[in-house]
Amino acid sequence: MSAATPLPETRVLAIASHVVSGHVGNKIAVFAMQSLGCDVAALNTVQFSNHTGYRQVRGTKTSAAEIWDLYEGLKQSYLDNFDMMLSGYVPGAASVEAVGRIAEALRARAQEQHETNSPGSFFWVLDPVMGDHGKLYVADDVVPAYKQLLHHADLILPNQFEAELLSGVAIVSMETLHEAIQVLHEQFQVPHVVITSVSLASPDHPVSSLSVVGSSRTSTGKARAFKIVFPAIDCYFSGTGDMFGALMVVRMREAVAAQEASSQGADALLSRRAWLSDDAVESVDLPLARAAEKVLASMHEVLSKTCEAMPAQMAKANALLDRKGIVEADARAKALHLLKSGAAELKLPQNVDSLRSPQVNFRAVKMEFK
Amino acid sequence: MSAATPLPETRVLAIASHVVSGHVGNKIAVFAMQSLGCDVAALNTVQFSNHTGYRQVRGTKTSAAEIWDLYEGLKQSYLDNFDMMLSGYVPGAASVEAVGRIAEALRARAQEQHETNSPGSFFWVLDPVMGDHGKLYVADDVVPAYKQLLHHADLILPNQFEAELLSGVAIVSMETLHEAIQVLHEQFQVPHVVITSVSLASPDHPVSSLSVVGSSRTSTGKARAFKIVFPAIDCYFSGTGDMFGALMVVRMREAVAAQEASSQGADALLSRRAWLSDDAVESVDLPLARAAEKVLASMHEVLSKTCEAMPAQMAKANALLDRKGIVEADARAKALHLLKSGAAELKLPQNVDSLRSPQVNFRAVKMEFK
Repeated sequence: MSAATPLPETRVLAIASHVVSGHVGNKIAVFAMQSLGCDVAALNTVQFSNHTGYRQVRGTKTSAAEIWDLYEGLKQSYLDNFDMMLSGYVPGAASVEAVGRIAEALRARAQEQHETNSPGSFFWVLDPVMGDHGKLYVADDVVPAYKQLLHHADLILPNQFEAELLSGVAIVSMETLHEAIQVLHEQFQVPHVVITSVSLASPDHPVSSLSVVGSSRTSTGKARAFKIVFPAIDCYFSGTGDMFGALMVVRMREAVAAQEASSQGADALLSRRAWLSDDAVESVDLPLARAAEKVLASMHEVLSKTCEAMPAQMAKANALLDRKGIVEADARAKALHLLKSGAAELKLPQNVDSLRSPQVNFRAVKMEFK
Repeated sequence: MSAATPLPETRVLAIASHVVSGHVGNKIAVFAMQSLGCDVAALNTVQFSNHTGYRQVRGTKTSAAEIWDLYEGLKQSYLDNFDMMLSGYVPGAASVEAVGRIAEALRARAQEQHETNSPGSFFWVLDPVMGDHGKLYVADDVVPAYKQLLHHADLILPNQFEAELLSGVAIVSMETLHEAIQVLHEQFQVPHVVITSVSLASPDHPVSSLSVVGSSRTSTGKARAFKIVFPAIDCYFSGTGDMFGALMVVRMREAVAAQEASSQGADALLSRRAWLSDDAVESVDLPLARAAEKVLASMHEVLSKTCEAMPAQMAKANALLDRKGIVEADARAKALHLLKSGAAELKLPQNVDSLRSPQVNFRAVKMEFK
């Protein structure tokens, strides 16, 4: 680990999709967390040949009953001793409910383990994967299923559209975004929220940039929001949300451990419910802000390197199609889409150093509202 | 990479089991190969909660038809462009046959890709997982299914028992072991063989040590055998064969690339069928020997560190059972077996440096026979 405070031993259960080829879901999350030293259990909710962005896919889904059965398999062999859980794409409302029951059981188990009262002994990072850019890509009943679970989660990572679905607030400005976060903190009792890839106009926010907005609630449920602005990369990637979630798991725990180490005599932050900082801590000083900065630094490096490699890969792809004599317009367009999807797969294993020791250049700034 | 010659770009298809918790099969192989910079596609032949050494397990198997379907999913999206394949545990003869057909198809695809004749453009590392210590743990018809496939493989990694099953030679001495290798080279046309965890008495082989024996055939099918002796570690681990196979994939390619780089003007070794060295190359100078040395160095470090951590973990396990009041002899023994299995899971993610830059202490020595 590059940080001054090493990551405490961390055993994580990751529940998400598996693709044979490429880097989305658990395929990217497991490697990212393992590379940072976690012991990761991976419960795969599907086994697909590739991600659905290719527009054609083969494979099978794991049923809600099978998901639960795998959890019971862990439990019966004393393998349910997790410090954290990360949940991503879960197909269908029944499976979402099963994942919620698993989180509750793991939390109870973690608390039983500790002789002293330690509500922070389990921490669930929930990525409520439902859709993007105004389009739902799960069944309608998944939305209420997630709403039911929110109060069990410690940190949620919706994108802008998912934050709208969960909060019921139409997000059209930074003010309404803040309102949505406030609803998630107060009404749904979510301790920490990070809204990923926000693309709202704002004075300090050039057109070619994106931001993430994060907040940890105070003891009275008030938002403490910060924003991190970073340059957009002109490529369409899949798996960025999954990579973000995996890195947040590790960097959040690391940042909380670091804050705990620097505040001698104070309550151990890692043993508090949801690792919530004192009300006196400003938004930009939150462990959540430190974690998000580091995560975005890693992501920006990996995405930049992936994007840089794409032109050469597409030149090869075109040469392949020429050689194969695929010239008819529709066939060529379809083939190029597939090859472009392949070229856009995140180059994570080839850039492990960007995961382990990223250069942090984008800093959290405080968001203030009247 | 620690080696002077960097690993050429390597895209690998890994076909093996997946466990949610723990480190066997693809769960360990994928991470090991990714950590060394490979782009790894993982086709999981089962999804089990844990490995079968726990003596209780939940989960599902992937059928032969599903395995083939996933391969077709890759193919239809131009994702079947692999340089190497690693196959491990495959449940049932029909699935073993499917894996063989996949290897043949990938080899044909790889050769089609290259404009020049390049029979070395695809390399299959086959771990014929069937049993250990005289006991078969797959169905009887898996043995002939593997025999049918052997001539398609480039490197096989049987343990001593599996080498007996495949060659038909009863291995009771280093001489008969050598005979088995000769049969695999000549009768089954296998280019490279490494027999893992050999525990035969030998003058240079103290009781507390193990060895691996490797050989690359000459152009006339003769064995060129070497042996690497290393200290046994007094712990029972699962997943060591899977880790060995994964690391051999990477280190073999790296060693062949290094040999190619050092012999200017010679034929490019990586484009030759099965990367077979000239007949003049001595056993201890084979890329296979270099690779095996490096793999064993990594394994010895990871296994030692895993073993060192076990007493503390078992003390915790006993405390847990005391707290839970599990005192009745049978129940306690069962629980301790489960907890010990958990403690013996290879600590790979926690010891990435041992994977990346191991200290090579055990060297290949030539095996000579009349």
